[in-house]
Amino acid sequence: MHAITMRAPGGPDVLTWAERDDPEPGPGQVLLDVAASAVNRADLLQRQGHYPPPPGAPDVIGLECSGTIAALGPGVSGWEVGHPVCALLAGGGYAERVAVPVGQLMPVPAGMDLVTAASLPEVACTVWSNLVMVAQLGVGEVLLVHGGAGGVGTHAIQVGKAIGAMVAVTAGADDRLARCAELGADVLINYRDQDFVAEVRKATDGRGADVVLDNMGASYLDRNLDVLARHGRLVTIGMQGGASGTLNIGALLGKCASLTATGLRYRPLDEKAEIVAAVVEHVWPLIETGEVRPIVHEVLPIQRAADAHRLMQDAHPFGKVVLRVR
Amino acid sequence: MHAITMRAPGGPDVLTWAERDDPEPGPGQVLLDVAASAVNRADLLQRQGHYPPPPGAPDVIGLECSGTIAALGPGVSGWEVGHPVCALLAGGGYAERVAVPVGQLMPVPAGMDLVTAASLPEVACTVWSNLVMVAQLGVGEVLLVHGGAGGVGTHAIQVGKAIGAMVAVTAGADDRLARCAELGADVLINYRDQDFVAEVRKATDGRGADVVLDNMGASYLDRNLDVLARHGRLVTIGMQGGASGTLNIGALLGKCASLTATGLRYRPLDEKAEIVAAVVEHVWPLIETGEVRPIVHEVLPIQRAADAHRLMQDAHPFGKVVLRVR
Repeated sequence: MHAITMRAPGGPDVLTWAERDDPEPGPGQVLLDVAASAVNRADLLQRQGHYPPPPGAPDVIGLECSGTIAALGPGVSGWEVGHPVCALLAGGGYAERVAVPVGQLMPVPAGMDLVTAASLPEVACTVWSNLVMVAQLGVGEVLLVHGGAGGVGTHAIQVGKAIGAMVAVTAGADDRLARCAELGADVLINYRDQDFVAEVRKATDGRGADVVLDNMGASYLDRNLDVLARHGRLVTIGMQGGASGTLNIGALLGKCASLTATGLRYRPLDEKAEIVAAVVEHVWPLIETGEVRPIVHEVLPIQRAADAHRLMQDAHPFGKVVLRVR
Repeated sequence: MHAITMRAPGGPDVLTWAERDDPEPGPGQVLLDVAASAVNRADLLQRQGHYPPPPGAPDVIGLECSGTIAALGPGVSGWEVGHPVCALLAGGGYAERVAVPVGQLMPVPAGMDLVTAASLPEVACTVWSNLVMVAQLGVGEVLLVHGGAGGVGTHAIQVGKAIGAMVAVTAGADDRLARCAELGADVLINYRDQDFVAEVRKATDGRGADVVLDNMGASYLDRNLDVLARHGRLVTIGMQGGASGTLNIGALLGKCASLTATGLRYRPLDEKAEIVAAVVEHVWPLIETGEVRPIVHEVLPIQRAADAHRLMQDAHPFGKVVLRVR
């Protein structure tokens, strides 16, 4: 098969479409003929050498894909060769073939084409596991989504609204915020010239946010604690603003608030399977009725993975960038 | 009535037994003839001027008491004059009389004398609200209790064991650790010459603690994150080691772990009532069967409140220091 390979860590140009050995599906795995993969911010870190694959995972970049089942590994039942699926991966998505534990397979939502389905696994698993399984976002609560225009953000807005929350978002441009509003966002905050603490307070009669979905980490830590309501839950899923920051424990204590940080990639198989099952049960129906829509900024051929990484780095795509393999 | 009053914030000697106006029970409150109060570390902070009472609370020190109901305020039903009770207070316990919202009243556990009952409200509400309502400590999980020999610690050991957890404790002297073992603690760590991270890992085959009940705050933050197991919950209820520390968000993220900080005193009435009701439902039966025992280090007359504060500050009492009022 072919896959995106890297001579060495570095800029987008290290990404090269080249021959690789086909993967073999191990026990409890299936082999997929990949239709498409999608770009995650973590892919850029891995390309730079900062985000190594977990033990046993392929060293090829790519945390999600769609495709058809090409072969079943030992002990697999309930799935058949030829089935169209999408999948959460620990790596290996930027390739013509990938082996996947069956707990990470999802059916393609009814009515959706296979290429678009590649845009869903990471955002759907990230958003549901954090907003619902960790933060227990409830009806009538206030959700603040940082990076509202990104892949996770555009999905989180829609799932937050489906749950019945009031949704506030931050983004860096007014046209991007306007598109967040089309997805249902109630409170639009341009982080370049507005203070999200003041804006969320103003929109909530001083209450603040019950749940904050944060991709910044250290640089937002103080203000994220500040914007939390009593019993607020700050959930950090990215550290674009640094991994180490000063925590005001007193502020947390005064609000009986909590801070959780999570990632998907390094979780054990059983945890991933639990999340994937919850997503298929709860999110897929929302997608099939159209209440939650996949947001794809652009589809590029996999051979242009370097351009896709440049787009993520420099051009602020709205939603996901998908890489078509076949 | 008489109460412990303060000329000004300062050392233990500012505490003076003097005349004060009787409190009046407001709507939804009862007036108690106080039998005993008990000392909390927060009382020492309030004496020094660092922990002001919340709006509407008496300025007299004292976060818990026992006594008999002397009068009912407007709209109170279900309680009768003469009933023996104990109570969680926002202040005012170091006095002959105190007015208490009915949601903070608890019956005296069957078979317990009134003076001993004054030692229970703060520790029982703190431990249950944090171990169960916040951290959801489960059967077979590992609980690390810092300050295991203190009032909260001695209660947390027993409740942790009753829940079915393995309990590790830190304390600063081997004889105090031996007494923690008598209460059920499984892993004994002398923080003066042992590293609690290494000791907990050693005792749990490397797993670490699922729940940490922490009274130190900033100074233990790094090591508390270090000792957490995957999905571990750090719950901070005191900041004896500082209120502001450097948080390694990456460490939290790698474990999908959470950090919550809580206090009882500033909570709204409905939250206190919810905690008190849960304590009476779940903890009182454990006390009545003897599975959880009140741990009282010493009972002093209320007029010796200054000595009680010196004892808390300098002498490392094992369990609670109670102040007898009548």
